[in-house]
Amino acid sequence: MLFHDCVPHRPERLPHNHLAGKRIAENGYGYFDQQAREYVITRPDTPTPWINYLGAGRYGGIISNTGGGYSFDRDPRNRRVSRYRYNAIPADQPGRYVYLRDQDTGEFWSATWQPVRAETDSYECRHGAAYTRITTQRAGIQAETLYFVPPTPQDDPCPAELWVLRLRNTSDRVRTIRTFSYVEFGFFDAVTDQQNLDWAGHIVGSSYDERVRAIVVGVRFKPTVSFFGADREPIGYDGDREAFVGRCGDLADPVVVSRGESTNVGSPRGNSIGSLCHEVTLAPGEDVSITYVMGVTEQPAAIGEVTRRYRDPSAVDAAFTALKADWDAYLSVMTVETPDPDTNAMLNFWNPVQCRTTMYWSRFVSAYETGLGRGMGTRDSGQDTLGTMHAVPDHARRMLTKIWELQFADGHTWHQFYPLTGQGGPGHSVEFPEWPQWYSDDHLWLVIAVCAYLRETGDYDYLDQVVPYCDGGEDTVWGHMLRAVRFTVDHRGPHGLPRAGFSDWDDTHNVDHGSGLAESVWCGMQFCRATLDAAELADHLGRTRDADALRAGYREMADAVNTSAWDGAWYARSFDDDGKPIGVASESVHRINLNPQTWSVFADVAPRDRAESAMGSVKRHLSTPYGVALLWPPYDGGDPRVQGTATFPPGAKENGGIFCHANTWVIIAAVMLGWTDEAYAFYRQTLPLARTDADRFAVEPYVYCQNICGPTHPQFGMGRNAWLTGTAAWTYVAGTQWLLGIRPTYTGLRVAPGIPTGWDGYTATRVFRGTAYDITVRREGPGTSASLTVDGLPLDGDIVPLPAPGTARVSVDVIMR
Amino acid sequence: MLFHDCVPHRPERLPHNHLAGKRIAENGYGYFDQQAREYVITRPDTPTPWINYLGAGRYGGIISNTGGGYSFDRDPRNRRVSRYRYNAIPADQPGRYVYLRDQDTGEFWSATWQPVRAETDSYECRHGAAYTRITTQRAGIQAETLYFVPPTPQDDPCPAELWVLRLRNTSDRVRTIRTFSYVEFGFFDAVTDQQNLDWAGHIVGSSYDERVRAIVVGVRFKPTVSFFGADREPIGYDGDREAFVGRCGDLADPVVVSRGESTNVGSPRGNSIGSLCHEVTLAPGEDVSITYVMGVTEQPAAIGEVTRRYRDPSAVDAAFTALKADWDAYLSVMTVETPDPDTNAMLNFWNPVQCRTTMYWSRFVSAYETGLGRGMGTRDSGQDTLGTMHAVPDHARRMLTKIWELQFADGHTWHQFYPLTGQGGPGHSVEFPEWPQWYSDDHLWLVIAVCAYLRETGDYDYLDQVVPYCDGGEDTVWGHMLRAVRFTVDHRGPHGLPRAGFSDWDDTHNVDHGSGLAESVWCGMQFCRATLDAAELADHLGRTRDADALRAGYREMADAVNTSAWDGAWYARSFDDDGKPIGVASESVHRINLNPQTWSVFADVAPRDRAESAMGSVKRHLSTPYGVALLWPPYDGGDPRVQGTATFPPGAKENGGIFCHANTWVIIAAVMLGWTDEAYAFYRQTLPLARTDADRFAVEPYVYCQNICGPTHPQFGMGRNAWLTGTAAWTYVAGTQWLLGIRPTYTGLRVAPGIPTGWDGYTATRVFRGTAYDITVRREGPGTSASLTVDGLPLDGDIVPLPAPGTARVSVDVIMR
Repeated sequence: MLFHDCVPHRPERLPHNHLAGKRIAENGYGYFDQQAREYVITRPDTPTPWINYLGAGRYGGIISNTGGGYSFDRDPRNRRVSRYRYNAIPADQPGRYVYLRDQDTGEFWSATWQPVRAETDSYECRHGAAYTRITTQRAGIQAETLYFVPPTPQDDPCPAELWVLRLRNTSDRVRTIRTFSYVEFGFFDAVTDQQNLDWAGHIVGSSYDERVRAIVVGVRFKPTVSFFGADREPIGYDGDREAFVGRCGDLADPVVVSRGESTNVGSPRGNSIGSLCHEVTLAPGEDVSITYVMGVTEQPAAIGEVTRRYRDPSAVDAAFTALKADWDAYLSVMTVETPDPDTNAMLNFWNPVQCRTTMYWSRFVSAYETGLGRGMGTRDSGQDTLGTMHAVPDHARRMLTKIWELQFADGHTWHQFYPLTGQGGPGHSVEFPEWPQWYSDDHLWLVIAVCAYLRETGDYDYLDQVVPYCDGGEDTVWGHMLRAVRFTVDHRGPHGLPRAGFSDWDDTHNVDHGSGLAESVWCGMQFCRATLDAAELADHLGRTRDADALRAGYREMADAVNTSAWDGAWYARSFDDDGKPIGVASESVHRINLNPQTWSVFADVAPRDRAESAMGSVKRHLSTPYGVALLWPPYDGGDPRVQGTATFPPGAKENGGIFCHANTWVIIAAVMLGWTDEAYAFYRQTLPLARTDADRFAVEPYVYCQNICGPTHPQFGMGRNAWLTGTAAWTYVAGTQWLLGIRPTYTGLRVAPGIPTGWDGYTATRVFRGTAYDITVRREGPGTSASLTVDGLPLDGDIVPLPAPGTARVSVDVIMR
Repeated sequence: MLFHDCVPHRPERLPHNHLAGKRIAENGYGYFDQQAREYVITRPDTPTPWINYLGAGRYGGIISNTGGGYSFDRDPRNRRVSRYRYNAIPADQPGRYVYLRDQDTGEFWSATWQPVRAETDSYECRHGAAYTRITTQRAGIQAETLYFVPPTPQDDPCPAELWVLRLRNTSDRVRTIRTFSYVEFGFFDAVTDQQNLDWAGHIVGSSYDERVRAIVVGVRFKPTVSFFGADREPIGYDGDREAFVGRCGDLADPVVVSRGESTNVGSPRGNSIGSLCHEVTLAPGEDVSITYVMGVTEQPAAIGEVTRRYRDPSAVDAAFTALKADWDAYLSVMTVETPDPDTNAMLNFWNPVQCRTTMYWSRFVSAYETGLGRGMGTRDSGQDTLGTMHAVPDHARRMLTKIWELQFADGHTWHQFYPLTGQGGPGHSVEFPEWPQWYSDDHLWLVIAVCAYLRETGDYDYLDQVVPYCDGGEDTVWGHMLRAVRFTVDHRGPHGLPRAGFSDWDDTHNVDHGSGLAESVWCGMQFCRATLDAAELADHLGRTRDADALRAGYREMADAVNTSAWDGAWYARSFDDDGKPIGVASESVHRINLNPQTWSVFADVAPRDRAESAMGSVKRHLSTPYGVALLWPPYDGGDPRVQGTATFPPGAKENGGIFCHANTWVIIAAVMLGWTDEAYAFYRQTLPLARTDADRFAVEPYVYCQNICGPTHPQFGMGRNAWLTGTAAWTYVAGTQWLLGIRPTYTGLRVAPGIPTGWDGYTATRVFRGTAYDITVRREGPGTSASLTVDGLPLDGDIVPLPAPGTARVSVDVIMR
């Protein structure tokens, strides 16, 4: 095992406002265009498909840098529109494709490189906020395809996406080009689509409907219809995959495109596709656009209105403008300017984009999550609210209410729920019926999230909202919160620590095998954080008795942790069925685990000496140049005490891999200890834009991935499972609230920077409860002490009090010494 | 809707024994080689993959005519070895491949055409009984690959398959060829392999183990190891798919083969493959062989013994000889020689091969059944025993006992069970919890099958075997049978007919939506057949009281059917929740259904006039040149009364498609009515070898498919879901026991030919209870009356009495007039 001390990264000091238009974080495959706010991919053969998301939580899907991906309406499992073949060869197919065929030469290629994969004269993919624009040039034809989902009301009966193809003749002669679109429809139940080929293969059919100028796809016994149309009359169409591709053919060389003639037949059964053929003749320099529209509805009569709407180019432009405006508004709530361009790009753009994406899609659908396996996670969505609370608090409130409805009267919650029905489910635990069927952390995240919501909004009436329990009865939100706390109090083990349940935050840490005795040390710390947050809230609202009880619970738990779990240089992770500790120095594997060290600080459990020792142990044993590993040394083969963790090879995921989510708490804990240089170094270790070694990192460098192979793994440094991870929300919290130190409180906005000594300061604008705070931080010394001036007047402390109602702007100047 | 009268097919009269070595049933893609007993495919681009099966019910899998397919051990869902991408583009990949690379030119291709799909100078695939041999020739190199699973004991701890590649230099110069094998391993849980990419992708790894000369693939926490080895030391290997294929590559052009150099690395995670590279130098005319061995074990120490065993070519030859001998023995139990070569080929070879295949794999794994969705069917496996009873009665007894263990004490059974665990399951009904959770036919098939077993074997002790009920208690097999009968008696509706349950034989005929009143007319007939069979058995055993009770039950049910369900020209299909009939002339759709007509004859329910009218209606309304449709007219859109059926478009599957299984009963009923010309015509309509229109039929012409698109379907005549269908067993029964008329009875072998007037007779050998019957039928007139002579002595009646114990052969001569 290699050890890597945490060496703070010190960028050159740079003047502010030097970044506009600059390419940052170039890595040989792409860069971030700060002015356009787009990640620009400059070659198609990225190490993995680098994807983006379309849509706003209802109709949408994923799209890769070469057009691969698929669409669905809300639920990729039960309301699937198009297909994607995960983990197949050829990779990243099918997708949203347009073939271009030169009618003079018969040569053909793809507007987005895939699936023909012909060489291009130029290639560029720009991933923006919920849109992607791919531009290729070949044989004197420039093809630009813009993909997006127009913003429409949540209850739009016929949601749709647009592909706007613009072809330009960059050659010096007249050119005739035929275009053939390609999308492969799936049966709406995506599991049946994979597993019941006989039924699904017989019942789904497609035909061309001239009235709506679209291929329509559906079954006979349900009104659900998918459609694929264009803004202009096609000269031909194909609705049947096998007819289009040809026998034994593939998407690189479909017979229809090769021949240049559509078959003009739908599909009575088999596999349905949407292929429309158009022919355009372009003078030198001339361009033309074709707008395709794809969607799904249960009101087929609505299709015509939608396809007609987008025949008007100004409607298309207006839709794209509306999309941009929506995202601009979302992103404008907090903007920062620091000396680190990577940090700026992440905090101003990609990190909040990723936060909103996880808010929409939880862990449901990505290049790794197939959209088939699981619902929304209680734990996941609860934490995801933390990353969007500042910008879309209403969504957070709705989401939290939805999850409170999954709480049982005893205080624990369902582990997951399905987006179409809202129905709760027990998650992975059902496969192990002898083990506990509840998770020790789920309900506590909700307490933490409600407190964060109230600090952000001051919407204290929310606490009085009455929400039912899933098994009968109801209570106010505050009552739900107290029951969550109570569940943990009522389910403690021999050391007074929370029983482990099926697992805590670490799904693979399965230490209770029916004994009812195994305990989670980390969950005790989580309990401390939740009760402290709730006690602070109760204080603020004058609910003194509740506050006292919560603080007593905190103190009892913190004492139990410190009495039972301190191992000499760090905290143990858990206790097994036999009461033996896990994550202690006397073991040969899993001697130290990350989370109890970070949370001992974050949850105010550890005395200062223990906190420093624990975090020093993290640096010594777990930190690597690519992030902090979750445990050390990893298991090498099955282990009956922890079960799930030891299913992974050493260095992979929870078994000593770098679990990015857990790295966010390292940053917070380091700031809390005043280790700001280390905190920033930890922040940079997992900052994706800082990973310019794309061939090693493999995944998208513009968003956080869930895990990175750890130092004992042969592929150390390789990222996995990009996009949908709790890392998004928590690293946004770590970056904005702890590194920059801009933290909402019940009484005002705290500004307590935790920036490294290498930074000369930063500026930020933060909208908080309707007022914009213009914050300027200047470093005049190497320390962490800060003096605040608010609208020119010195402030005692670091909490900017709430201004008079209606105050538009507040200016905050901070001097650090 | 088109109507097609049933026109009897009259082949030319042909002398016997004219067929040896002849190619029959040529269709432009292949033919049957009667001498070799192999279906020979002469071009690779068949309309669908034409597959074969390897193995004998334990380790095995499917293989297409171009090497596509996959392997597993017993259960393709839970003990998967290799991967297959169903319904993907490119189709029919991956498989068991060997790339050949000419080291002088760098040119490469595939030994089995796929996946490179390069043009070949010649191509031939020979599907035999549980083996496949694919031969291609290109660039002066002939490559022949023989695939099979050596017969080993059922409890072999390390089952394996062999690929025997023979390369011959047919050019006039010395050639150096590099071979690169390719197989793609899957995680043993094939659903997780598709749906949990993150976990499966992290935990499965491969490495080359020099000690056993194989790539080994597994996880850290289970001993299960898959392996891929060769009989000679490779010069290189690849264990990682992405390294082998190359970024954005596909199997047609993998970078390792293109470059000609293995990477010699395993896969620490991701996708594991088995690729071994060898180099051979061949003088003109010289040949060489490489034997690959692939398998799976939970005792990794056993791998070395297996890979070493097959380094000896004589061990490989011996294994193949043993395989052939096993099949020869199986096939020799009954052989026939009729004037129809297609019929001969089917009854002597492909039909019994298919019967044994359905016995092994139920409806589990084919080119349509993904091996993911369902267990073994109670109904399916119960009927499948009928097709193998004559040859492997012990297997039938074991299977029936296993299914009796799934019976509840009230008499109904689980609908399905899983092959690895034997655990029962309710099937599709769980998705509709308000509807009945039992099927009205499942348990009755077992009664019918036990009677068939006893007619075949005389093993009456079986009736006294004590078998537990799945919900407690136990009884003899006879007791189980009586409880099955009792369940139906106890669950009758307003007309005295069996309640419909979730469905009867037609899974999609869902007429009880919680009323408890809907009834199945057909199931009433099935009950009659079962009770008549059981009564006859009770008679034979002198169990008079049981016989009387059974006959009384039969009479009561037959009366109920005739009283309530006769519609004037045919029988109704069922009664709905409101007691209204379905399948009657007064309706606008589904006016007539096939099954109640055939079974009114087969179950001895209809008086002669009604029987003729019912079967005449079948001819008039349902018969087509490609078989008899299941109902007419089809539904066009959802229907609340029948539910499942109406999910299909008109003419597809149960909604008016040609359901081949139901066609077998048409043949039997026609013979029973004495309509032997029609019976033979019906037999020919669905006889796959008779379908020489391969582009229309699409599926394998050597085995029965489950369904054929009906006359209202745009793809009328297209076959779907080949191989795993109850058609196999029942058409073997129809062909041998009814057309040829060779039927086991409790007292001897009945010979009552139902051959068409166009046949001059047939000869057959049938082993029955240890004695071989040499049967010669000669037609001397156009009628169906038959006079039998046994060993030269005239026989009264048509049942050849059981000879003295130890009698080796009996000669039966039949004259028809």
